[in-house]
Amino acid sequence: MIYDLPYRRLLLLTEGLLGMFSSKTAVCLLRYRRPHVVGILDSQNAGKPIKSLLQDVSDVPIFAGVPDALPHKPDAVLVGIAPVGGALPQPMRQHLIDALSKGLAVISGLHTLLGEDPELAELAERNNTRIHDVRDPGPIHRIAQGLARKTRVKRVLTVGTDCGVGKMVTALELQRAALKLGLDAAFVATGQTGIMIEGWGIAVDHVLSDFTAGAAELLVEHVADRQICFVEGQGSIEHPGYSGVTLSLLHGTCPDAMIMCHRPGRNLHSEWPECPIAPITQQIDIHERIVAPVHPGKVVAVALHTAGMTPDAADRSIKSIADQTNLPTADPIRNGCDSLIEAIRRHLDL
Amino acid sequence: MIYDLPYRRLLLLTEGLLGMFSSKTAVCLLRYRRPHVVGILDSQNAGKPIKSLLQDVSDVPIFAGVPDALPHKPDAVLVGIAPVGGALPQPMRQHLIDALSKGLAVISGLHTLLGEDPELAELAERNNTRIHDVRDPGPIHRIAQGLARKTRVKRVLTVGTDCGVGKMVTALELQRAALKLGLDAAFVATGQTGIMIEGWGIAVDHVLSDFTAGAAELLVEHVADRQICFVEGQGSIEHPGYSGVTLSLLHGTCPDAMIMCHRPGRNLHSEWPECPIAPITQQIDIHERIVAPVHPGKVVAVALHTAGMTPDAADRSIKSIADQTNLPTADPIRNGCDSLIEAIRRHLDL
Repeated sequence: MIYDLPYRRLLLLTEGLLGMFSSKTAVCLLRYRRPHVVGILDSQNAGKPIKSLLQDVSDVPIFAGVPDALPHKPDAVLVGIAPVGGALPQPMRQHLIDALSKGLAVISGLHTLLGEDPELAELAERNNTRIHDVRDPGPIHRIAQGLARKTRVKRVLTVGTDCGVGKMVTALELQRAALKLGLDAAFVATGQTGIMIEGWGIAVDHVLSDFTAGAAELLVEHVADRQICFVEGQGSIEHPGYSGVTLSLLHGTCPDAMIMCHRPGRNLHSEWPECPIAPITQQIDIHERIVAPVHPGKVVAVALHTAGMTPDAADRSIKSIADQTNLPTADPIRNGCDSLIEAIRRHLDL
Repeated sequence: MIYDLPYRRLLLLTEGLLGMFSSKTAVCLLRYRRPHVVGILDSQNAGKPIKSLLQDVSDVPIFAGVPDALPHKPDAVLVGIAPVGGALPQPMRQHLIDALSKGLAVISGLHTLLGEDPELAELAERNNTRIHDVRDPGPIHRIAQGLARKTRVKRVLTVGTDCGVGKMVTALELQRAALKLGLDAAFVATGQTGIMIEGWGIAVDHVLSDFTAGAAELLVEHVADRQICFVEGQGSIEHPGYSGVTLSLLHGTCPDAMIMCHRPGRNLHSEWPECPIAPITQQIDIHERIVAPVHPGKVVAVALHTAGMTPDAADRSIKSIADQTNLPTADPIRNGCDSLIEAIRRHLDL
């Protein structure tokens, strides 16, 4: 099942955690879906200016509770955190009870499925509203057959040298840049944060492994009439925990072009520190070789994640990677996407 | 959850299908678990000599129904077919009702989960017995961390140029041959037929994709105190529908050695005929390259599936593949496993 979330007036629930690392879901929503956010629910930070807690975010009100937010006519509360373990923090529960009681929907990417909580499920039913656990893709029974390569939409997949190197953000930035250039561009979400940002998608890592590539194929078919799509990659082809999902996306989406995402200076896998990350040129080669039997896709550019580096250090990294790979290289956030989009258009003849 | 099936007096249910292609599950059980089979349930073939229906199978009685079989003290009925679609054929239902009513367990690898059938589930509970749907692995939440490479057991994984080229049979034959040589060898089942043969295992293609390699890691840990294990491979690294599972097994089990299984003369993927199968040398190379970041594993021999070929044609294929790959090559069924085991022992220093 492809999620499709019709809500356009969101309250982001961060109760006590706004500005902390675990509120990154809310931060992503503020960055990429600002027009659909009416406010934040966080009694610990209510009334504070958002800029005192987060940088680079345009103004948005922080409410102490659902009753204060109701005059802004919200239609859903989105759980804006990604806690370790994935359970709902207790202080958030009352907000969800208040929201459901007023007929608002609830959107969550937590591991713990809120729709299976008897009290919350009963409240949703009684108030004629819904709980969307976007991490649960529901039943999917498609075995991929390489059908994505037959769609007319050009397919660009972000891949990476590790987890957490900017695959989702790069795909989002590329789609935004392509739209500005007048291309009919779609973003294809494959994880819960991407789904919450874009409002549709499938969390492919929670599909049965026999059907994971099939889920990717379904997603591409969903945008088959667009001009180009940017698919959010997952995992890493050399991480033992995630490589199966990574390869399912590679073979399920049949990319015409890939963007290799990389975090300069990271030499060990973030979630598997005993193992060094293979050189980027080697990773580019293995990606191109492993997709070739299904559909020939090329890595056409490199997106670097240089957050926290000085401008000089970032520039040196960009130059060094460009020299090593002989590919256009940029940090989409720091440098914009012009050179990456140009490489994609040239390769795809768009 | 790793299945563990304690039954040692099995009735194989084939009702009307014995000798047909879909009874291959029963045939595998007869080949690899003959001492634990007390008979076959098939009213259409009851009383016939088994040799009139199947070749190369030692004598076993065929019963018309559970009542006739009871004097042989069966402890479980195993659904011995793998029908297209995976549902229970209606003529089999009464046999299962009779079996459960007498307190026998039921073992099934069907897609349709028999434990979710209200009538059968109720009968099992009332008669204090169980229904084992071995295709359903239950909840598994392990993210692989490359831990298999730290176990002391030597790990041999069968891989293949396509689906249906003998990966399970090769692993089983190698384990049997290794046991005969005095090695403390385990067979690690990763699919439903393998589980029914060996009595334990996980159907890895029905694990959530985030945890598929973790399931493989759990399986290796289960045999960590053995000398060597032969893991049944799944899928194909270049089939879009199955490659994610294949790579999860490669990274989850961290093989020290791989055996490449191949069916001579097959040039197109069996379940994806629009795509040619890449040359075997290229496939050997990509397998070795893709496992290397996690654990260096080598393809040390080739197992051919030459069923249906004349002896001359089989010999020519074996010689041709041996020349191309420069590796010991044999059909485990036609030629035995000596040369393959020798290559494994040499590589692993056993």
